[in-house]
Formats: sequence, structure tokens, C-alpha cells
Amino acid sequence: MDYEAFFNGHLGRLRDEGRYRVFAELERIVGAFPRARLHREGEAPRDVTVWCSNDYLAMGQHPAVVEAMQAAIGAQGSGAGGTRNISGTNTLHAALERELAQLHGKEAALVFTSGYVANETTLQTLGAMLPRCELYSDAFNHASMIAGIRHSGATRRIFRHNDPRHLEELLSAADPATPKIVAFESVYSMDGDVSPIGEICDVAHRHGALTYLDEVHAVGMYGTHGAGVAERDGVLDKVDIVQATLAKAFGVVGGYIASTAATVDFVRSCGSGFIFTTSLPPAIAAAALASVRLVSGQPELRTRHQERAATLKRRLAAAGLPVMPSTTHIVPVFVGDAALCKQASDLLLERHAIYVQPINYPTVPRGTERLRLTPTPLHGDDDMARLVTALQDVWQTLGLSSRAAAE
Amino acid sequence: MDYEAFFNGHLGRLRDEGRYRVFAELERIVGAFPRARLHREGEAPRDVTVWCSNDYLAMGQHPAVVEAMQAAIGAQGSGAGGTRNISGTNTLHAALERELAQLHGKEAALVFTSGYVANETTLQTLGAMLPRCELYSDAFNHASMIAGIRHSGATRRIFRHNDPRHLEELLSAADPATPKIVAFESVYSMDGDVSPIGEICDVAHRHGALTYLDEVHAVGMYGTHGAGVAERDGVLDKVDIVQATLAKAFGVVGGYIASTAATVDFVRSCGSGFIFTTSLPPAIAAAALASVRLVSGQPELRTRHQERAATLKRRLAAAGLPVMPSTTHIVPVFVGDAALCKQASDLLLERHAIYVQPINYPTVPRGTERLRLTPTPLHGDDDMARLVTALQDVWQTLGLSSRAAAE
Ligand SMILES: Cc1ncc(COP(=O)(O)O)c(C=O)c1O
Ligand SMILES: Cc1ncc(COP(=O)(O)O)c(C=O)c1O
Repeated sequence: MDYEAFFNGHLGRLRDEGRYRVFAELERIVGAFPRARLHREGEAPRDVTVWCSNDYLAMGQHPAVVEAMQAAIGAQGSGAGGTRNISGTNTLHAALERELAQLHGKEAALVFTSGYVANETTLQTLGAMLPRCELYSDAFNHASMIAGIRHSGATRRIFRHNDPRHLEELLSAADPATPKIVAFESVYSMDGDVSPIGEICDVAHRHGALTYLDEVHAVGMYGTHGAGVAERDGVLDKVDIVQATLAKAFGVVGGYIASTAATVDFVRSCGSGFIFTTSLPPAIAAAALASVRLVSGQPELRTRHQERAATLKRRLAAAGLPVMPSTTHIVPVFVGDAALCKQASDLLLERHAIYVQPINYPTVPRGTERLRLTPTPLHGDDDMARLVTALQDVWQTLGLSSRAAAE
Repeated sequence: MDYEAFFNGHLGRLRDEGRYRVFAELERIVGAFPRARLHREGEAPRDVTVWCSNDYLAMGQHPAVVEAMQAAIGAQGSGAGGTRNISGTNTLHAALERELAQLHGKEAALVFTSGYVANETTLQTLGAMLPRCELYSDAFNHASMIAGIRHSGATRRIFRHNDPRHLEELLSAADPATPKIVAFESVYSMDGDVSPIGEICDVAHRHGALTYLDEVHAVGMYGTHGAGVAERDGVLDKVDIVQATLAKAFGVVGGYIASTAATVDFVRSCGSGFIFTTSLPPAIAAAALASVRLVSGQPELRTRHQERAATLKRRLAAAGLPVMPSTTHIVPVFVGDAALCKQASDLLLERHAIYVQPINYPTVPRGTERLRLTPTPLHGDDDMARLVTALQDVWQTLGLSSRAAAE
């Protein structure tokens, strides 16, 4: 077999479909967020306004987070030096896990190298080890949950997106004796819609299932202490296992679960993706700890964040731009075609120094390609005014529709 | 189902078998390596000598690495702010990938959140997407490779550990037209033995297979520039895809592959574990970049490292301790029983302030439990003398055998 020809052939097809991914090479600038410097071969670097970062609260440049991380490196160095079991557990990992457990009102928490690994490892481990386990998965679940569910080898059943009645139907048809897990998200990151957490949990529990909730796009941003939508909705105790990330609203990197002591100890003891990998550097744990404490104690950050998102949606709608019906801080603008989406992104950058990555298949279904905007507390009114004008120009240039759905 | 009872039951069985894992909570101390501070609930912290770290060259405390990381945080902050595709590619990621490609003499490289994720994602993606792919796997391959191979759904064939003749036999029986990958390691981390890389690659290539080599426990430590055993053996060009980590000899965190531009671009474009996760913080890339450059330019570090390992093996053997026949920097001492292994580790800590984690199933096969020592350039003659005396005391106290194998 000619492997090179095979790889090149596949890449050629991605190019033909307009969904070959070109990464924008950024240099972040502490103190200047949402501005960053864009680097391109053969061009002078130039400043752009970033409108698609998942550093949702700009915590990645917060002085207290930066200082905590620098201090920990000075004291403890650049790495952990081993897996969690073999010399790689640090006092800072333990402190972070206690803080996260407390944030979610759970007995214990466990930190992983990423939110992806947290989802994949936990669902895979539970699905594989609970005898004859059945996994019930929301149709729009993230790739990392799907990976864990698939790799567990457990029976998988998909319920319609955010539809507790369909879940009820599926669970009613199942053997009441088998172990079951219902896995879903609170905020869906590409549409910005929210799940009915309490209702889904009630259905699950009536049928003896464990509930597993991904709050990756919600922690830090919803609830009085930023524990997520489950906290906002007053249903923290209905979530048996909560999973989230340290890389988005908390501005660092890493992921975690929080649950009962026994559940966490089980995943700690049996999860291959947790056991057989070097643990996060102590300095990452220090930065995350500082960030979680700060964000948790500052509800005004969440208020400002929501106000910014609401304002942006209002302005886009007023300008006749096809903002999709999100109820959160995520503001998708509909395009509906991979090549046009890429062109819109290119024009925003070339003409207006605005960086928004096009979102294409497989991240979203074909025909629903979009620009996904993420206003943060640091995006000012001026930034918004410039963005709206720029989008109007691009929409006109490319003859894009103002309808927020496929026709 | 009573989930709590199930989890607790499983944990109880681990305890009964003596292989329930208790993590040692360490505080690392820049400048004091291999000394660290051990923390335990209800006890005053105390200093211990670490003999089981995978910070093999103590780069995690190197001033240049520490400073590069701190400077990058001050300039760019604590996180990347997105996935590689959506605002999370940084100039420092790109620079690190160029450096790693060059180190291994390849066209391109790709950085992942860990070595585990690099293995799992690459093997899974290739195995799943190359039509009717067959994966040939060394019997002792690491959990992360096994995960990738399993999850790919491709046909899996195990060849006997380090046995090119068995590989030849298996390949001869296969359809010459199907795509194939031969996956193996250079240094096996628990036994410290080395594979015949050139021979295995020759067999693979005669049968039209791609070669995939994990150099996680070799990069930085073997070869003129520290590119690994393939460099030392002069067979860099026979390895089609090399995989390694930034977390061991380089002292930071993260993993990577290096290969042809098309192979790397294919994995970049299709690998779920690469695409759907926040990228490493720019400061991690900066620290790794500094470390790779330093280590690569200092062959004397590798000479000293090998001398330390040889000296330790000689001293252990002279003291009648069952050092296993490793040919590398990894020095396993045979125990052969999970409970005794744990007791030996406990005694070393309590009586001698020496920390060596017991290595039990599933990390090694049952009946081959061991203490795994990792001498670094910073373990002095005094440290070794104290270690040997301590081990003799423990061996005598527990009545352990001096034979380096199961009886
Ligand atoms: C819903 C969801 N879960 C999990 C993840 C993975 O988290 P992390 O970036 O920490 O790997 C993401 C995105 O990155 C996500 O969108
Ligand atoms: C052979 C081998 N490959 C891969 C890994 C994973 O590397 P990382 O620690 O960077 O995840 C390890 C150990 O951690 C290993 O021993």
C-alpha cells in the first residue's frame, strides 16, 4: 500500500470540501485580551481582536493566576516527574481536588490531563467494568464522551437531544436490573443551548441509572459559586458524577470529575487514561487552584459575562445578522456552507483584523456551518460595534442569508 | 443496582490483594533534587530521597527551563484559550513542533496533551482509517498503545516481545495488499530492556508495513542529540512514525509524534483526541522547547546518566540484591509479590527516608512485582551508598530472596 498517496488523497478531499483546517498562529498578550498577535509565514505579525476564544472569562491573563503559576514553577519546577502513582502526586494536586469537590458539593474529585481524557477515561472505565452496563447518551454529546462510551464496549443507546421523554421511553424498555449511566452536557458548546438537568436526572433515577453531566462550558460561568448550570438550577445533588475542564472559564488546562468518594476512588484505581500517564505539572494545579477560588468568589464576573452576551445577541439581531437562538454566553451566527464559512472568516481577518475561526463538519453537522462568537467580560462596546459592522460588510460581500437556519 | 456497594467491593478486593494504590503526596523542591518533601495527613512534612522519578535528567528544575516557562507565562498567560483549531494554536506550539521534527530527522511533528494521548490518538486514527488495517503489536507494549490499537477496531496481532522472527512469521501469513502497522517501544520502562529497532523495521518494511516506535523512555537519553535509541543505533530513517513524551527526560508535560508531512497532517486533520481538546499552555511549549534544546546539545548529560545507572547496578549486585538484567538507565529490583513489594516500599520510607513506589499488577505481570529505581545524573555516590544499605536492611527484615526472577 502507498501510505503517502492515501494520506495525501484524504487531505485533498478535505481541501476540495473547503474543510481543510488551517490553524491561526497566535501570540497571546497578557494585559491586552481580547487582542492577540497573529503570525504568518512571510508576513509581519499583526494585532487582531479574538472573538472565538474559550478563555471565557479571560482568567488566563489574570495577575493572581499568572503569579500563582510562576511562583509554583520557581518553587517546584516545570513538571510533576511521574504518573500519579509513581512519584507524580503533588500536594497541589491534592489541594485542587479538595477545592473542586467542595465547589460541586461532592465528597471527592479527580484531576485528569484534560477534560477530554476525563470524559473518555471515566465513561470507558465505568461502561467496561459495571457488568452488562448500558450507556444512554444525548444525541449531541461531545466527541470525548462518545469516545469513552464507544471504547467501553457497553451497550449504547442514543436519546434525542435534550429530550427527557425519549430517554424515559428507552429506559422503560430496559431490564431494570442492569447498571445504567445517563450521560449528557449542561451547555452545548456549538449551539449554546442548555439541557433540562433536573428533569433528565429524575427520569434516570426513576430507572436506577447513574447521572453523568459534562459542565465543561458552564463551570465558572453559571451558579452562585460558578459550579455550573446544576448549581444555578439547584440540582447539584441530582448529578451523580459531574465532569468539567480547567481549560475554559478557569483559563488553564486539565479536566476533572467530582462524585462520591467510592466512585472517584474506583476511577482512580481502574482508569487506564488516568493511571498510565504523567500527571499535570504542580504549577498547572497551582494556577487552576487560584483561578477556581477567584472565579468562585466573584459572581459579578458572571453577571458582566451574561450582560455582554445578551448585548451582543441584541446588536447582531438588530443589524439583521442570523444569530442562532442560544440561551447562553455562546453566540453562533449561521452560515450553512463550509466554503462560505471559511471565506467569511478570511474576510473578517483580512479586512477587519477580527479573528473568528469557521466551525465546520465534523464539529457541527454539514449544512449548519457557522461562526461561533464568544463575548467575554473584556469585550467592550467598541469591540462589539466594530464586529457588527465587519459582519455586515462580510455578509453583503458574500451575499449571505440573514436566516439563522438551513433553508 | 447498588453502585456504591459495587465500587466499594472492587476496592476491597484490591486492598485484599495488597495492590490498592496509595499515592505519596510530594512537594518538589527546585535545587534540591532528588530530595523532596513528603506530606501526610496528621504528620509533619519530612524530606525524602526520591529514587523512582521519571524526571530522568532532573530537567524539571533546570534554571533555563524554569525561566523559559515563567517568562512565557508573564508574556502569554496560563492557558492556550482553545483547541488547536479554535484560537488555541500558538507560535510556541509551532516552534516546538519544528524543533521536534528536526530532532528526529523528520519532515513534521505534532504535539498532543500527553504521550498517552499521542499513542492512543495516532494508532486509533491510523488503524480505523486505513482500510482493513492490521496492527502488529509487541506483547509488552504500553497501555496507551494498546488502548489506541483496541479502539481503532483494526485487526490486532501480538508478536512475542522483542522477537523479529515471530513478527516475520505473522507478516508472512498476511495478505500483502492490506495496510499494516508494526508498533513497538525502544526502551521498555519496567524491565529496562531495548528492542532491536533496525531488525524489526527491516522485517516490517519487507512486508510493506509502516513502523511505529514509542521512544518515551529513550528521548533525551540515547543518541548523540538525544533523539533516542533509533539515533544511537543509526536507524532513524527506518522508523516511519516516532512517538515520545515531553514529560520524562525533558521534564515538562505533553507528547508528540514525528513523521512525514502527509502522515502528520493526516493525524492532525482526523485524530479525535488531537482535535477536540484544549491545546497545551504556551508556557508548557516554551519550557519543553528550552529543555529539548538544552538536552539535545549536552551529550555529557547522557554519559553521566549511563555511568550512574551502571554504578548503581554494580553496587546492588555486589550487595547481593536481585537487580534485574536491564541494559538501560532503568534499574528494577525483583520482589515477586504484591504485598511484600508494598511492605518493602513502606519500610524504605519509614526507616530510611527513601521513596520508591512499589510496582504491582497491572503495571507488571503478577509474580514479577518489583521496586523500580531510576538513578539520575544528580544521584550522588552517597545517595547510592545509603540506598544499598537501606535495601539490604529491608531485604533482611522481610526475608526477601536475592534471586532476580520468579522461582
Ligand atoms: C463538551 C465538551 N467536553 C469536553 C471537552 C474537552 O475538554 P478539554 O478541552 O479540557 O480537553 C470539550 C472541548 O474541548 C467540550 O466541548
Ligand atoms: C512506554 C510509554 N508510552 C507512553 C507513556 C505515556 O506518556 P505520558 O506520561 O507523556 O502520557 C508512558 C508512561 O507514562 C510509557 O511508559
